[in-house]
Amino acid sequence: MSSLFILKIGGELLQSPEKCDQVLQYFVAHQGPKILVHGGGRDASLLSERMGMQPHLIDGRRVTDAPQLDVVTMVYAGKVNTQLVARLNALGQKALGINGSDLGIITCDKRPNTPIDYGFVGDIRAVDGSVINELLKLGITPVFSAITSDGQGQLLNTNADTVATAVATVLTLNHTVKLTLLMGIPGILRDLEDSESLIKKLDYVSYEELKVSGALSGGILPKLHNGFQAINNGVSEVIIANEETLINHQNTLLCR
Amino acid sequence: MSSLFILKIGGELLQSPEKCDQVLQYFVAHQGPKILVHGGGRDASLLSERMGMQPHLIDGRRVTDAPQLDVVTMVYAGKVNTQLVARLNALGQKALGINGSDLGIITCDKRPNTPIDYGFVGDIRAVDGSVINELLKLGITPVFSAITSDGQGQLLNTNADTVATAVATVLTLNHTVKLTLLMGIPGILRDLEDSESLIKKLDYVSYEELKVSGALSGGILPKLHNGFQAINNGVSEVIIANEETLINHQNTLLCR
Repeated sequence: MSSLFILKIGGELLQSPEKCDQVLQYFVAHQGPKILVHGGGRDASLLSERMGMQPHLIDGRRVTDAPQLDVVTMVYAGKVNTQLVARLNALGQKALGINGSDLGIITCDKRPNTPIDYGFVGDIRAVDGSVINELLKLGITPVFSAITSDGQGQLLNTNADTVATAVATVLTLNHTVKLTLLMGIPGILRDLEDSESLIKKLDYVSYEELKVSGALSGGILPKLHNGFQAINNGVSEVIIANEETLINHQNTLLCR
Repeated sequence: MSSLFILKIGGELLQSPEKCDQVLQYFVAHQGPKILVHGGGRDASLLSERMGMQPHLIDGRRVTDAPQLDVVTMVYAGKVNTQLVARLNALGQKALGINGSDLGIITCDKRPNTPIDYGFVGDIRAVDGSVINELLKLGITPVFSAITSDGQGQLLNTNADTVATAVATVLTLNHTVKLTLLMGIPGILRDLEDSESLIKKLDYVSYEELKVSGALSGGILPKLHNGFQAINNGVSEVIIANEETLINHQNTLLCR
């Protein structure tokens, strides 16, 4: 099976054009088929405020009413996706912007409105791996924003980490998939105060221990949960890194 | 050569979800390969005002400084394109949102800043017809927004009618291309006050006569100019219509 590299980048990186460009150059230099997935939450919050609407987040997840759905669609599928695709093509990568509604690639269910009504938020029902494979075979590099649809024309806001892991998982049928989740931290630290305490390999048992000890908490937990789920579902490698440790490989590798 | 249907829809239609849906259903019912191209100027002006910026138009063309480029990118490539693609896929069409920077399909030159500085506006340098043909061969229906790039990563705002005619022209190499430009008018009227005066076939000589007589003026002129240019360059049919005359075929056909 051929190797496939999937890189997910987030909102923090997109705020820094110089760092973002370093990461894109690293991505382009990586040989073989690859996929980019991106967020853009910071930009979405900025636009929302500019339009006079205070974004409302619960545990870091955006409550997406109809006006906020417009905001994230414009920012993720519009501005961020288009800028990344234009830059990648300028760097010689045959990049194609994709959102879940394109070719029906990602279909979601609107999240039930209890216990919390998140509005137009989608939980992934299906990813059409065969269409993604067709694109990869043409030498195309898909660039995914995390806008999806319910298959009936309703757009939905989906978590970008979840999109990355779902796409990675579906493609394990045809590829040895290596997934890198870029974050604001260099990797998983045993002690958040000590950047030297980076864990190079984190297995599921140690992860559970770190959770219980309180060393891991907050926004990193759902990301790690996604990562371990991907490994359980056949993704061969999941790396947690920031733009620096991505490049110098001093990051955290999740393993069984 | 196989027949190819290209439909361009504009900002007025997008303001009316019901009419827009009729047109999309007509588009989907049309058999064979096809392409949709859309504008979205009205939506862009609304967002711009919402963000506290007055849009500035000269002869109907948007002056696109950096903040306005963000606005049109978000509205055209984000909101409008994604909504249309989601709806088309829900109607069973294998639709893929495209902007000019995707796969380097449309490359533009930034318009010279004299005599008028339009800012980040692009004039088309090249359309890569072979990539569009690859997509069509896969049974994909490309949905073009009029955001393009200069090939160096700089996004540019391009006129959607121009995108439609340039794409149509390049594809005449492999297809018998029929181009329909949807507008706010039923077709070309000999007398603007008289909706019964619709011209069913308009040739270039009559067009020039109507211009001289003053019966044609304003925003329709560059659209007709584009249309006749497309015919001169091998497009087999150019129709000027609105959503009603598109469906009942009581529209204007441009001919040599």
